[in-house]
Amino acid sequence: MRASNLLISTLKETPADAEIVSHQLMLRAGLIRRLASGLYTWLPMGLKVLRKTEAIIRDEMDKAGAQEVLMPSVQPSELWQESQRWEKYGPELLRITDRHQREFCYGPTHEEVITDLVRQEIRSYKQLPINFYQIQTKFRDEIRPRFGLMRAREFLMKDAYSFHLDHASLQQTYDDMFAAYSRIFSRIGLDFRPVQADTGSIGGNASHEFHVLASSGEDAIAFSDQSDYAANVELAEAIAPAGQRAAAAETMTTVETPQQHTIDDVSQFLNKPATQCLKTLLVEGAEEDSVVALVLRGDHDLNEIKAEKHPLVAEPLTFATPEKVLESCGANIGSIGPVGLTIPVLVDHAAAFVSDFVCGANDDDKHLTGVNWGRDLAEPDTADLRNVVAGDPSPDGQGTLDIARGIEVGHIFQLGENYSSKLNAVVLNETGKSQVITMGCYGIGVSRVVAAAIEQNNDDRGIIWPEAIAPYQVVLVPVNAHKSVRVKQKAEEIYQQLQAAGIDVLLDDRGLRPGVAFADMELIGIPHRLILGERGLDNGMIEYKSRRTGEGDEFPIESVIETIKQKLS
Amino acid sequence: MRASNLLISTLKETPADAEIVSHQLMLRAGLIRRLASGLYTWLPMGLKVLRKTEAIIRDEMDKAGAQEVLMPSVQPSELWQESQRWEKYGPELLRITDRHQREFCYGPTHEEVITDLVRQEIRSYKQLPINFYQIQTKFRDEIRPRFGLMRAREFLMKDAYSFHLDHASLQQTYDDMFAAYSRIFSRIGLDFRPVQADTGSIGGNASHEFHVLASSGEDAIAFSDQSDYAANVELAEAIAPAGQRAAAAETMTTVETPQQHTIDDVSQFLNKPATQCLKTLLVEGAEEDSVVALVLRGDHDLNEIKAEKHPLVAEPLTFATPEKVLESCGANIGSIGPVGLTIPVLVDHAAAFVSDFVCGANDDDKHLTGVNWGRDLAEPDTADLRNVVAGDPSPDGQGTLDIARGIEVGHIFQLGENYSSKLNAVVLNETGKSQVITMGCYGIGVSRVVAAAIEQNNDDRGIIWPEAIAPYQVVLVPVNAHKSVRVKQKAEEIYQQLQAAGIDVLLDDRGLRPGVAFADMELIGIPHRLILGERGLDNGMIEYKSRRTGEGDEFPIESVIETIKQKLS
Repeated sequence: MRASNLLISTLKETPADAEIVSHQLMLRAGLIRRLASGLYTWLPMGLKVLRKTEAIIRDEMDKAGAQEVLMPSVQPSELWQESQRWEKYGPELLRITDRHQREFCYGPTHEEVITDLVRQEIRSYKQLPINFYQIQTKFRDEIRPRFGLMRAREFLMKDAYSFHLDHASLQQTYDDMFAAYSRIFSRIGLDFRPVQADTGSIGGNASHEFHVLASSGEDAIAFSDQSDYAANVELAEAIAPAGQRAAAAETMTTVETPQQHTIDDVSQFLNKPATQCLKTLLVEGAEEDSVVALVLRGDHDLNEIKAEKHPLVAEPLTFATPEKVLESCGANIGSIGPVGLTIPVLVDHAAAFVSDFVCGANDDDKHLTGVNWGRDLAEPDTADLRNVVAGDPSPDGQGTLDIARGIEVGHIFQLGENYSSKLNAVVLNETGKSQVITMGCYGIGVSRVVAAAIEQNNDDRGIIWPEAIAPYQVVLVPVNAHKSVRVKQKAEEIYQQLQAAGIDVLLDDRGLRPGVAFADMELIGIPHRLILGERGLDNGMIEYKSRRTGEGDEFPIESVIETIKQKLS
Repeated sequence: MRASNLLISTLKETPADAEIVSHQLMLRAGLIRRLASGLYTWLPMGLKVLRKTEAIIRDEMDKAGAQEVLMPSVQPSELWQESQRWEKYGPELLRITDRHQREFCYGPTHEEVITDLVRQEIRSYKQLPINFYQIQTKFRDEIRPRFGLMRAREFLMKDAYSFHLDHASLQQTYDDMFAAYSRIFSRIGLDFRPVQADTGSIGGNASHEFHVLASSGEDAIAFSDQSDYAANVELAEAIAPAGQRAAAAETMTTVETPQQHTIDDVSQFLNKPATQCLKTLLVEGAEEDSVVALVLRGDHDLNEIKAEKHPLVAEPLTFATPEKVLESCGANIGSIGPVGLTIPVLVDHAAAFVSDFVCGANDDDKHLTGVNWGRDLAEPDTADLRNVVAGDPSPDGQGTLDIARGIEVGHIFQLGENYSSKLNAVVLNETGKSQVITMGCYGIGVSRVVAAAIEQNNDDRGIIWPEAIAPYQVVLVPVNAHKSVRVKQKAEEIYQQLQAAGIDVLLDDRGLRPGVAFADMELIGIPHRLILGERGLDNGMIEYKSRRTGEGDEFPIESVIETIKQKLS
């Protein structure tokens, strides 16, 4: 492509309303423009990236045996009523009334539509398993759209839905999709982690999220430094410390701690590390009117998802009122502890491993020091109640955990019979009996992948595209071509040679000053730059610069194709 | 592709609610399924056709220098208010209210959005001309969606918009788009005609529609049997007959014609051909309270568009009330004629060429015969007031006109300054002055092209795809492969050879009875069929059948690649 035939709309200034770097750079590099809140137009340069991303996804989905379909974006409310989501979905569902006063929505997802299709087209177990996907525009009416395409209202998504006679078949396709997703993000060139995810309220069986690692990520991910283990911090298991708890060395003593209510206060006041101060939290119990005490190490955070899954604890997790705390412990929040309590006490594994600990005395403005399990109070009932922290051992027994931030770009999910039972999607099984189909679903936020790629690959000069999705692999900049006919001619010749060799090359024939052209191309993030000038021509040499490493080089013009091919491979 | 990995959902019965053959066959061949009124899901087999069609369009648009973008499908009402279309557009515009009670629409077209983009991005005449296109889902809330994808609510469209400093530049791009559209429909393999179209109320300058010829077409098209001339029948010029009117031979006579009010009545009653009976229609005149008489040959139809463009005639064309007719002519409708009228009389060229004609006597239940212009009444004021008919001379002077029905699949349009002036899209021109941009727009109904291709290419067994957009070019059917290992193995081998040769081949490995498999593939319309069986294997031969001609053949297995390649080229 000749740059003179391409809309290159770079901006010098960072747009004020763009909060994260991908949003800023997509605007500055002229990849997108805002139409309205959460609505963006893809300009030619950005669309090239989107289409390359799409092509990789399509290729791997096809190879994994999924069949591409295209469902309408507008969906009738009747199907959503069958799945009971019409009422449940809330205001993120963009509801539409047509000219005949019938209700529709702009689909944020297509479980209902595909299940409706399958219940009509698939009759026999012999037609299963089957996996359909589409690459489609979706709409989610976010209350506060932001971060550009990271949380847009209209966005491009690849969604797939698989249908099975039994769980073993679902597991097989799930594993295939897991592998396909891994290939997709590897081919795009991203540093990513598949992480175990919460199956949440949908009630499916297994679920993995695919996260692109980037400091701006919304999610914290725990992953092993020695294995493939990775999980959302909220879901990562904090395993019980190995070995024996240290023997008691101190005597339990009551100390005055006036106005010292937080772990920080107490730790500082008593000069004890937070790791040795236990905190006690009162939550509502599963039985009516009951309360349960949760005990954690002072430096650890309660994990609400884990806690509410405990049979003694009410779901959703609800903290006891101050009145209830006073009634149950005889003291106010900030002075309570496990010693002498008559309510059930659940102790996090790590807290149960501490000797000579500090805790509230159940007497206002007093704490106990030198407390020991099995001596000053009973041996604890333990549970995993906390978020993992960096340095914790990996739950798979290999290495220790690291914590990084990630951007969710993919999600695979074993839905089971959730939609198929509600929509009565059944097949005849091998014995001729009607059987509800089992489902999986698999999403990739295509436009989000582009934004996440930028979050992970940028510097102060702009975007650094992974080669596979760069708008152009190579940019060729002739220097002062408007003054030098031979530079212009030679550049044209090299441009055509590169094109003929199947290299996706941009010829910057705009005639800008070299510095301006270079800055544009660095902002846009084209991986390889070739510079041809008078001086180089004299010596038969062409300059080269790598966008990623910033390293410059020079090589003979006659070997340009070969050299670039090497750099691309 | 192996058929066993592909959803092939053919139907034996014609769905009752499908009125036209493309709709019937798209359902029966399993290309699409209905989700709701005017909303269709593309199944894998149909989507392959759509994507091939899309790819041809994209390729030619790129080659013609247009730049692909992707604009949101959801558009803010504010822009439509600027263009004054928010109120005007009527109920076909699907209006949407978001969670913040802001108004949007699901775009049926994107003039506003692209003009908004251009007014922000394009500042200088040096950036012009520029031509943007997208392939996007559109929505038109049809009052009565029907004919499947021919008049669906949600559909796929290629829309392009070009921007220019002046009309000469617009004309250049318009001509380029005209050529690109011609290449697109030729490459797809359709019999089509570019026809002059009405610029209608948008008020642009020039406009062409591209019609696929098919008997089910909604539009009648007049085209020359000897030149490229083609126009919508409503717009085709009916040129004045050449030569001299025949001399008067009869005397004007008043005859009783009781209860004879239509041309058919009078023609039969008086035993005169309709070509010799003139009909007179009274319409409102451009001046207030005035009326004008329009006179046509009895076998010709009034063309309202032509008539209302005449300066004497009110626009829009409005027929005079019966009372007004009686008042102006002294007789009721059915007995009026041009003789003795005191109101303006406009006579169609063909009617002005008739001698010894019959017309109403302006006296109820009486007609005049043997009437002659220039003798019994003044020489007429002539105009082109009628629709052309088959056999009329072509307006370009080459050949005679034929009339065929067509399906509009493309439309190119010189918009001029209509949108750019309302949205204030200006650039600085060469003298540094602000100048309103001139626009063109260019649409192709991508999903409609697929339906139109079927309307033009089908027989009683199903679809006959043009090769360029067939879901597969070749289907290979092994006969009784489940019984014969060597047939199965050889078929597999040939399948892989065809694939390796870059041929888009479907291996029908479903193990159906040959007759059933053949019927499926004929319904789906795959252009070339190969059949491999035991008997053929014995002789080293493979059977071949062309879907279009129905001709069978047989050739050596070893030459299969070569032979198929020949047939495809």
